[in-house]
This record gives sequence, structure tokens and C-alpha cells, in this order.
Amino acid sequence: MSSSIVDVQNRTDTRGLAIHKVGIKDLLYPVRVKQQDGSEQSVQGLFTMTVRLPHHVKGTHMSRFVEILQQQKEALDHESLIKMLYRMTDRLNVEAGEIAVKFNYFLDKVAPVSGQISAMDYQVQLAAEIRHGAAQLVTQVVVPVTSLCPCSKEISAYGAHNQRCHLTLTVVSDEPIAIEELITIAESEASCDIYGLVKRSDEKYITERAYENPKFVEDMVRDVALRLNQDARIVDYEIESENFESIHNHSAYALIRRLG
Amino acid sequence: MSSSIVDVQNRTDTRGLAIHKVGIKDLLYPVRVKQQDGSEQSVQGLFTMTVRLPHHVKGTHMSRFVEILQQQKEALDHESLIKMLYRMTDRLNVEAGEIAVKFNYFLDKVAPVSGQISAMDYQVQLAAEIRHGAAQLVTQVVVPVTSLCPCSKEISAYGAHNQRCHLTLTVVSDEPIAIEELITIAESEASCDIYGLVKRSDEKYITERAYENPKFVEDMVRDVALRLNQDARIVDYEIESENFESIHNHSAYALIRRLG
Amino acid sequence: MSSSIVDVQNRTDTRGLAIHKVGIKDLLYPVRVKQQDGSEQSVQGLFTMTVRLPHHVKGTHMSRFVEILQQQKEALDHESLIKMLYRMTDRLNVEAGEIAVKFNYFLDKVAPVSGQISAMDYQVQLAAEIRHGAAQLVTQVVVPVTSLCPCSKEISAYGAHNQRCHLTLTVVSDEPIAIEELITIAESEASCDIYGLVKRSDEKYITERAYENPKFVEDMVRDVALRLNQDARIVDYEIESENFESIHNHSAYALIRRLG
Amino acid sequence: MSSSIVDVQNRTDTRGLAIHKVGIKDLLYPVRVKQQDGSEQSVQGLFTMTVRLPHHVKGTHMSRFVEILQQQKEALDHESLIKMLYRMTDRLNVEAGEIAVKFNYFLDKVAPVSGQISAMDYQVQLAAEIRHGAAQLVTQVVVPVTSLCPCSKEISAYGAHNQRCHLTLTVVSDEPIAIEELITIAESEASCDIYGLVKRSDEKYITERAYENPKFVEDMVRDVALRLNQDARIVDYEIESENFESIHNHSAYALIRRLG
Repeated sequence: MSSSIVDVQNRTDTRGLAIHKVGIKDLLYPVRVKQQDGSEQSVQGLFTMTVRLPHHVKGTHMSRFVEILQQQKEALDHESLIKMLYRMTDRLNVEAGEIAVKFNYFLDKVAPVSGQISAMDYQVQLAAEIRHGAAQLVTQVVVPVTSLCPCSKEISAYGAHNQRCHLTLTVVSDEPIAIEELITIAESEASCDIYGLVKRSDEKYITERAYENPKFVEDMVRDVALRLNQDARIVDYEIESENFESIHNHSAYALIRRLG
Repeated sequence: MSSSIVDVQNRTDTRGLAIHKVGIKDLLYPVRVKQQDGSEQSVQGLFTMTVRLPHHVKGTHMSRFVEILQQQKEALDHESLIKMLYRMTDRLNVEAGEIAVKFNYFLDKVAPVSGQISAMDYQVQLAAEIRHGAAQLVTQVVVPVTSLCPCSKEISAYGAHNQRCHLTLTVVSDEPIAIEELITIAESEASCDIYGLVKRSDEKYITERAYENPKFVEDMVRDVALRLNQDARIVDYEIESENFESIHNHSAYALIRRLG
Repeated sequence: MSSSIVDVQNRTDTRGLAIHKVGIKDLLYPVRVKQQDGSEQSVQGLFTMTVRLPHHVKGTHMSRFVEILQQQKEALDHESLIKMLYRMTDRLNVEAGEIAVKFNYFLDKVAPVSGQISAMDYQVQLAAEIRHGAAQLVTQVVVPVTSLCPCSKEISAYGAHNQRCHLTLTVVSDEPIAIEELITIAESEASCDIYGLVKRSDEKYITERAYENPKFVEDMVRDVALRLNQDARIVDYEIESENFESIHNHSAYALIRRLG
Repeated sequence: MSSSIVDVQNRTDTRGLAIHKVGIKDLLYPVRVKQQDGSEQSVQGLFTMTVRLPHHVKGTHMSRFVEILQQQKEALDHESLIKMLYRMTDRLNVEAGEIAVKFNYFLDKVAPVSGQISAMDYQVQLAAEIRHGAAQLVTQVVVPVTSLCPCSKEISAYGAHNQRCHLTLTVVSDEPIAIEELITIAESEASCDIYGLVKRSDEKYITERAYENPKFVEDMVRDVALRLNQDARIVDYEIESENFESIHNHSAYALIRRLG
């Protein structure tokens, strides 16, 4: 039936302007993600899928992006995301395109003393882009940790202000890097990592560990950078640290980047 | 080891003030939800779990709430949520408590003409409360639909402004009501329901259907109320309609409630 | 001209259902607010304005709500908000209505040791409702403070986890209560209040003060309740404390209420 | 007193890593902004202020950023923002820095037929950056408009779906460009602009105007681009169009950019 309906998008455009990105944004869709150990996790992905539109075409075909997503049966990892991206650029008959998907990802963590297990949530974004025939991958994780202020510790008779902090690692790589690898690096370079479930013995451990290991936002981005600098798979990175300061109603923030 | 660590929370409080709710808020946790057809869906629940604290106790035991959640193996529906709630009040040795969990819930929808299938997302909240030994259930769904303005249609030579609209149904019931039942009612009382994936034939259908079926926010809450009034399982309800107006940068809003 | 255009909203409705609230939601509008010292502060108010609609009327007149707001020249305080509310119910010819306005409110704070001055922001909501001819006022403030965990302090060899905390006071009163009064109470019952601008001498003070003054979320709501219980102007209140825990990725939460 | 307190931030760092941005993020502060007509508007600015930190310095001085803001007496426009930026880099003794401030900005709009006046809110960001001794300015406005789908209009017997849309213009310029200029361009290239307060005569006008002027997200970014291409002051731009689709629960999106 739809063959008899006018296709306005396919008309010729005469304004002479290519469009760098056009498609769908913020579509929530259930997908599975491959974990480092090979098992799969059900997540809800917030998808943005766009293509480059040549100057002479009036519009893209929005429904095809959702079709590509609906047809995606394989769990997402870097390899399957790139395959999905090629299916999208083929289906839309374009040479450049991009898929980015954000989701909350859960890992079981073991409390440091009691050994109690609980899930921790991390915000993750996987993005893949085709440009000039080559695909590039970007992996981003936002890792909640605790940070304790070195200045506050040193100048005070007792105590030290500390707070929740977000360490965000955004990594461009030629070879796949597991989400779990980036989370582990971030957690090990904070004043201390954090947990869903802690008993008193764990709370004592975290409190003392953070006090023994004070870090500014500047320290955390530098220490993570030293770690990423040792990984030959990583082309570019951006590392951010944001302290939701407990003595202010604003954040302390630092960013360090390397462009390959 | 933790047996030798001081338990500050268990101390006596002398301020003479009971606390109506104390516990954990906004904990994101992976759980499964039972669907109407008996199958299960993996969701990420945002949990708030609280209890009433007697006046003579200094503090609650925060870690026990997470333990209850970590031990929850059964998929959530009204029955299993109430069982979880009783486990919580038992474990914390209190007489009143509440669990509320918000999550995005997906249903496959079939486009009205092309028959194409795609997932649609709905915000859901299930809440259960124990007070004086009895448990009460509240189910809330936020259903995105389209609404077309009757006034704009009638006064204009052609066209009519329309927009995305959220219909929110909050229902207190003695017997279980499926999430799917509430979604179906909301979608059938809007100007038209909406879809992730539509072909041109579907777009034509939705456009014309909404134009033939104009509704104010007032109409939508009244039409849903007429439907809920026919359901003997429902004790109380609150129905909200919010138009993200396409001719304004604010919303039109209506609310109708019935308290049993 | 508009007199010749059909007025769809004014038509008769036959569904037999009154609507409890109908109007506009989330309209951002520039207004002024009266401060405790009599001066005025420019704020941006997020307004929700609704009326009760009788069962026999099809729809309300949405534009009149915005007219009432546009005509509001006087700075808002409890008295002028109630006058505005009566203008709204008169203009819409109804017996019940409600205006709620949320805004960020700034106060100059003086750092505790250095004496440096900086602005602090607080989220405020003023609401007024007419029901059965009488107006009722609700004032809400969200006050960011720091809280230090008594358990963590007591069980640890050194340090104690602390974090940003929101103390939310919602007060129903017969007589006006200044925003500033509620902020002062909340700040004085936290482990320590916080500041936009602190020098090292202030940071030392805040760190040590919080360490000397550990409080659970339970303690903060009780201590604020004891203060509000002494104020004869207050009819009802609800006090909430939410710790954005530095050792978790979720909040600890407590609520205490008094219904007059 | 603070002279006798250890200055941890000033210590030498040996990790050999410069930090690209360090400072404060999301500090809400009351400021004034200069309007195109020379008058001033009170706004609440959400400030992010950062500097580049040399590799051999351990940390920046966070309090100095807030001092710079607290000392800012002049209303913000491009000229005064750059002066503020130079004060910041001088005070922190660095060669590169950046200030970005987001705020809601209000303009009085006149309804197209009735002539009724009401305020409309726009999200604005002004950013200034110093790099290699030169300052660069970026102005961003998010303009809410209405968009009507050309495809839906053409294929349907009557009606056409339309929705709220955000047009976002981000402009790098050598010479100042007024916020009002960018808003005017965006509003004139949508299907129709929108208003806080409309009477029925205005609603009829907007409905018909949008129906006569259907535009895809692709059309809007191209039409705005044609306008910006004519302005010699503009070096680079990025234009985004996001339709909060009334027939979907996700957005249609387009982006066009020019890098000078």
C-alpha cells in the first residue's frame, strides 16, 4: 500500500547544503550487551543514530533507523556494533554515519571486608562512526567513586571532607577495550571505590582507606592518565573528574586529554 | 569481625520523635518484572525502601535494605513485591514500611497499517506499603500519546496543533491490575497512540485518526476516568494529562482523582 | 476579532465529572520575590496554576492563567501570592484554585573565618491554595548542607565519611514564615553549613566542625523537628533529609511529618 | 591567619602531565546580562570556569574562581565576559582558560493577531576561551518553536502532525552577535514561532501558518544555515534541530556545521 503514497523525503533539494548528521535521537530500546566474560546483560539503550545526507537529497528515511534497531538480534559489543553501523549506512545508502548508545551497566561487587555481594551501576556509552570507509570506536564509562581532599586533611586537626565523585573515561581505540577494564582502572585510582552494600567492617575499611589516600580532582585525572598511557590499544582519551563537593553546592572539575 | 564494632544506630534516642520514613533512596538495581502473559522482563529498578522508626531508636540499619534487594530472586509482580515488603519489615523489626520501584517497561507494538513491530517504552512505578498489618498496592504508568486540540481544529481553516502528551494513571487496587491493562486504556482514550516504528501508511493513519479525534487535556482525563469507574478492582485513582504544547513552551495540564 | 471565533471550551460537558485541577504547568516566567529585609530579588519562577472545573463545563481558558501572571507587577510574598490567587479564581470564575511557583533563591553568606562573602543558591517553592473560600500557604526550601556519619567516625581509626546532603523543609502556616528563617534552621541543624567561597582557614573550620558534629539523616530530621515544634505559626510540616552518600551510589533518606 | 596554613595545591607535581581544564563546574550565581537595546536583565548563571594547569603544579586554587565571579559587577556581554576571563587567567597566573555560563533569557513577545504581550524563555550559553593570547567567543541559543511535518501533510487527507521543536544555534564570531539576532533567525525559519500567551485569534493564525509552512528537521537546519552564511561576522557555526515528535516517543534530529 505504501508504494502508492508520495515519498516527500526522496525529492531533490536545491539549497546546496549537505547535512552532517540526520536521524533519530533518544530512542529507548531494550538490547543486550556482551560482558567481558562472554555472558550477556539486558540493558535499556538510549540510541542516537544519524547519517550524513548529501546536498541534493531533501530528507532521510527516519523509519529505517528504527528498523535496523528492531532487527538487531546479536548482543552489542564493539564488533557487533560496527556490523550494525554498516547495515545502517547500507540500508540508508550513505557513506558516513554514527551510532551512539547510552545505558546503565551493572557489575557485581564484593565488599572489601565482609565479602558481601551487591550490584553497582555505571553509565556507559558505546559509539561507532564510519567516515571515509573506516569505522572508529569510542567507549565511555562514568564511574562513581569517593574522593577525599588532601588539603582539608592536611590543614585540619581531625577529619577531612570527602564526597561522591564521578570519574569519566572516554577512550578511542583501534582494538576493543572491555567496559570492565576501564571501570577497574577508574576505581583503583580514586581515594576509594564504593559499593551498594557495606557492613560496618566495610564502612570502617572505606573510611580509613580514603583517609590514607587523599586525592584532588587533579590527582585522579593524572593517575588515570598514567594508566591509560601504558595501554597500546588506546589511540585518544579524555579523562574527567568531578567532585560533588561536600563543602560547596558546586563541583570541582578536571579534564586531561590525549589526542593521538 | 563486625560483631566487635560498635553499633551506633542501635542506641537509644531520647528526643521522643518517631520517624515516618527512613531508608535508602534512588538505588538502581537490576530486577525482573512479570508480564501480563506470565513471561518475564529484565528492567533496571530505581528503588526507594523505607520503614517507620520508633521514637526510642537512634537509627535504622541501611545495609539491610540492600540485602533484601540482593536476595530478591523472584520476578516482581504485586504478589512478590508484597512478599518482599514483609521480608523487609521482618528483617528490620518494624510494623510499617514501604517499597517503591520505578522502571522503564517495554511492550511490542504493531503499527496500525503496515503491521511493523517495534518496542515502546513506558515509565512504570509499583509501590507497596504496610500499615497496621495490611498491605496496599499502587500501580502507576506514564503513557506517551498524541493529542490534537479541538479548539485549534474548529477555529482554523485547515490543520490543528497537536503534540506529544503524557497520560499518567495512578491506581490503588485490592486485586492486581496488570501494567498492560492500564497502558491499553490510556492509549485508547488519547487522540491517537504512538509508535517507535511507522511507515508512511501508518503516518497517514495516525495523522488522520488524531484529526478525527481531537481531545483537550480535560477530555482525556474524563474519558480515562469513565473507563476506570467501570473496574470494580480499583479503589482509588488519580489521572493526569500533560500536553507538551506545540504552540507554547509550557504544558497544559489536567488531573482528576477519586478517593474510595 | 476573537469574539467571532467559536469558543469550544465554553461548551457544556455531559460526562458528569468535575476536574480537580486544570491549567498550565511548568511555565517559566520572570518575577520578583520579597526578601525578609523588605528588598526584592529577581527570580525565574516555574509556575503551575490550576483551578477546579465543574462537571458541566467542557474546558478551562488556558490563556487567562498567563494573563494573570503577565499582569502581576507586585513582588511575590505570601500576601501578594494570595491576592494573585484570588484574581485568578475570580477571572476564571471558579471557587477553588492553586498557584505553585518554584525558583532558585540566593542569599549572601559570610565564610566562617575569613569573612569572605559569596552567594548561595536554595531551591524554594511557594504554593497557595483556595478551598471553600479560605487560602492556605505552603513554603518549601531545599537547603544543601554537609553531613558527617556518626557510625563511620566512631568505628574508624581516623576520618569519617561525609557528603553533600539536602535538607527539605515544607511548612504549612497560618502566618507568613520567611524563606530565610527556614534556611537558617536547616543550616544550623546539619553537621555544618556550606559556602560558595571558602579560603583555607574556612575549609579547616568546616572540616573540624563537621567532624565534631556527626549526624545521621535520622538526627537531622529530628533536630529540625524539635525546632519547628517551638514555632506557634506552623500548622503542619514535613522534613526530609537526603544524603548523597560518599560511600554508595544511592542516598540515605529520612522523613518526619506533623499534621496539625 | 590563612598565611600560616599549609598550601598543598602549590606543591610541585612530578607526574609530568599538564591538565587541560581544571576549576569549578555548575556554580549557580546571580548575574546581569546586557540586552541588545542596552538595558540589563537579571539572570541566574550556571558557571563553569577552568584553566590549563602546567605539568609541574599539583593543583589550582579553586576559591579564586568564585572570587572572580563575586567581584564581577558589570553586566555580562561579550566584551565584559572577555575582561572577566582575562582577570581570571591573570589571578590564576595561567596562559589558557575558559568561562562558560548558561542561563534562561526572557524576551517579551507580541502575539501575532491579538497583540497580547508575554515573556518567552530561551536557554542561552555564552562562552569565552583564551588560547595563545587570543580570546574567542561562542554564543549558543536554544529556541523552542513549532514544526509541522511536510510528509504527514502531503500524504494525509486532512491534518498534519506537528510538535514542539528545539532549534539550537551555536555561533563562533569575531565580532559580537546579539542573543536577540540569533533568536529572530531561528524563529523565522521554523514552521511557526511560539508564545506564552495566545488568544483564539492567535491560535488560529499559528495553526494555519504552520500548516502553510511545513518543514522537516532537515529543512530547518538548512534554512538557518543559508541565513548564517550571509553574516560576515560569523566564523563557524553549528545548527541543530530536534523535533519532540508527536507520533513517536523519540526525537527526529539534524545537525549542520561550518568550520571556518
